[in-house]
Amino acid sequence: MTALTLFELIHDDLQQVEAKMRKAGQEAEGPLRDAILYLISSGGKRIRPALTLVAGRHYDVDRDALTSLAAAVEMLHTATLVHDDVIDGSLLRRGNPTLNARWSAGATVLAGDYIFARAAIFATETHSVPVVKLFAETLATICGGELRQMFKYYDLDQDKQEYYNRIYAKTASLFSAATELGALLAQAPEEELTAFRNYGHYLGMAFQIVDDVLDFIGSEDVLGKPVGSDLRQGTITLPVFYYLDKGGDRRILMEVFNEQDPERKQAALTKALDTIRASGAIEAALQEAWEFAKKAQEALQRLPETPYRAALYELAEYVVQRTY
Amino acid sequence: MTALTLFELIHDDLQQVEAKMRKAGQEAEGPLRDAILYLISSGGKRIRPALTLVAGRHYDVDRDALTSLAAAVEMLHTATLVHDDVIDGSLLRRGNPTLNARWSAGATVLAGDYIFARAAIFATETHSVPVVKLFAETLATICGGELRQMFKYYDLDQDKQEYYNRIYAKTASLFSAATELGALLAQAPEEELTAFRNYGHYLGMAFQIVDDVLDFIGSEDVLGKPVGSDLRQGTITLPVFYYLDKGGDRRILMEVFNEQDPERKQAALTKALDTIRASGAIEAALQEAWEFAKKAQEALQRLPETPYRAALYELAEYVVQRTY
Repeated sequence: MTALTLFELIHDDLQQVEAKMRKAGQEAEGPLRDAILYLISSGGKRIRPALTLVAGRHYDVDRDALTSLAAAVEMLHTATLVHDDVIDGSLLRRGNPTLNARWSAGATVLAGDYIFARAAIFATETHSVPVVKLFAETLATICGGELRQMFKYYDLDQDKQEYYNRIYAKTASLFSAATELGALLAQAPEEELTAFRNYGHYLGMAFQIVDDVLDFIGSEDVLGKPVGSDLRQGTITLPVFYYLDKGGDRRILMEVFNEQDPERKQAALTKALDTIRASGAIEAALQEAWEFAKKAQEALQRLPETPYRAALYELAEYVVQRTY
Repeated sequence: MTALTLFELIHDDLQQVEAKMRKAGQEAEGPLRDAILYLISSGGKRIRPALTLVAGRHYDVDRDALTSLAAAVEMLHTATLVHDDVIDGSLLRRGNPTLNARWSAGATVLAGDYIFARAAIFATETHSVPVVKLFAETLATICGGELRQMFKYYDLDQDKQEYYNRIYAKTASLFSAATELGALLAQAPEEELTAFRNYGHYLGMAFQIVDDVLDFIGSEDVLGKPVGSDLRQGTITLPVFYYLDKGGDRRILMEVFNEQDPERKQAALTKALDTIRASGAIEAALQEAWEFAKKAQEALQRLPETPYRAALYELAEYVVQRTY
């Protein structure tokens, strides 16, 4: 992983976002306090708040409000992960035990709700109604999309468009909103808002396709969870669509879905992963991720040139390159 | 149940709130649409949005914004109930099957999240940042409080203050916010905001104590769920505190908590309910509910006289009288 210009540009801002989130954790009571601090400390790459910060800094914007907004974005993301893990029964995320692994499902649901609320409070600290509105709409999009996904588990007959809808709702909607929100806070002109929104959207699509590919070709060390987790739980991702498009045998997948015995299920999964890897589906999916990354870069052309714009351009390449 | 002046005064406003919530349901996709419409149609007495409407109408306020705000309050309440039911594994609410009884826990969690988001969107339609902020803070208070309650199940040594904290977080915080929000939207003077906030707070405390009492003395028909549900799941409410204060035998309660066999557990529960009913604890708890209702009425004295104020005065009596 190279040191990205983007994270250098906003290093100090991101530190303030971290401090703000930690403060929110410290202000919570008892077990909730520990839970939030744990979640924050075991957090990921902070790509979403980074998008908000970079889009905001592209303009002359109130820095305190921008910090609050970026914290709101990351807290919203954290809350959705907490609920995802309780829904999927996941015990590991990024190699660390999930909250779900330590608390009852009920307490975990409530902790997620609390973090949603905390995210919304951060959003109101921007004193911008349009910002809070886009923020709330994004949460509705994410939840609506995840719910749609649940009704599509194990469904090999679903349309590929369904996959795009799902990854938009799951990932690209928040990437898109995170980027647009920074510019919206800066009261950027409509055309530039659209450029940021489109950039975030395409970047998010590329990011999620790469994530879905990594579930096939990554290592457990890097993923922080077992390889093939998606397929095991019946989530159909882009490599599977390409595998089937290329005339792949769907019985190999049905065996994974239908097998109840844990050992035989794992064997069926290993076989399915190997078969899909050998089919050219991975390369086809990655090619598509590249195309989305290129579209993201194209969207940036409508913006004035700044170091922030250049950093976003570079990020789009990085997001796909992380597979190599 | 008498026809309350309050519900007559705001009859048309409440119809518009219903229409707004139904519209939100209709705009959702697929199963989520049906779920939201079902939840709205099997809703309760709408006391929380009524508080918002009455407090707003006490002033000259934008009616569309007030409708959105009242809908936001009821949707927030609905979302918390959806999550409560999945957390408690409840299959019945108000005599109807819960969403949880028909959907997987995961899908129910996501539906609740979606309804939270929808509530927040309604709140932003007021175009008032202070309104949205109080709204988000209330959600944080509710979730934080419920989480605290989870760590206090089956704990007979907890302080009575812990009970007040819990019912504040669970009920009175939203009653208080619902009432204050209507006045806040109308940009009422600080002293009157405080009066509304206090009224809602005390009313909510009275309301929840009565709810907790009804769990001992109500009928399954009226409650829409089995009598003694709180005690069965280890939730210690005011009658239990009074029973113990009066020197009641705690072994009777421990039997309910510790018994695993369903039939013997039910027998232990029936015995505990009878014993507590005979101890004078119910009367003592109701006396306290009356005192909270009186405090709510006193808070109103700081407000100018209007038919809306008079209706709130009457409501405080009604809330306690519903036990008779």
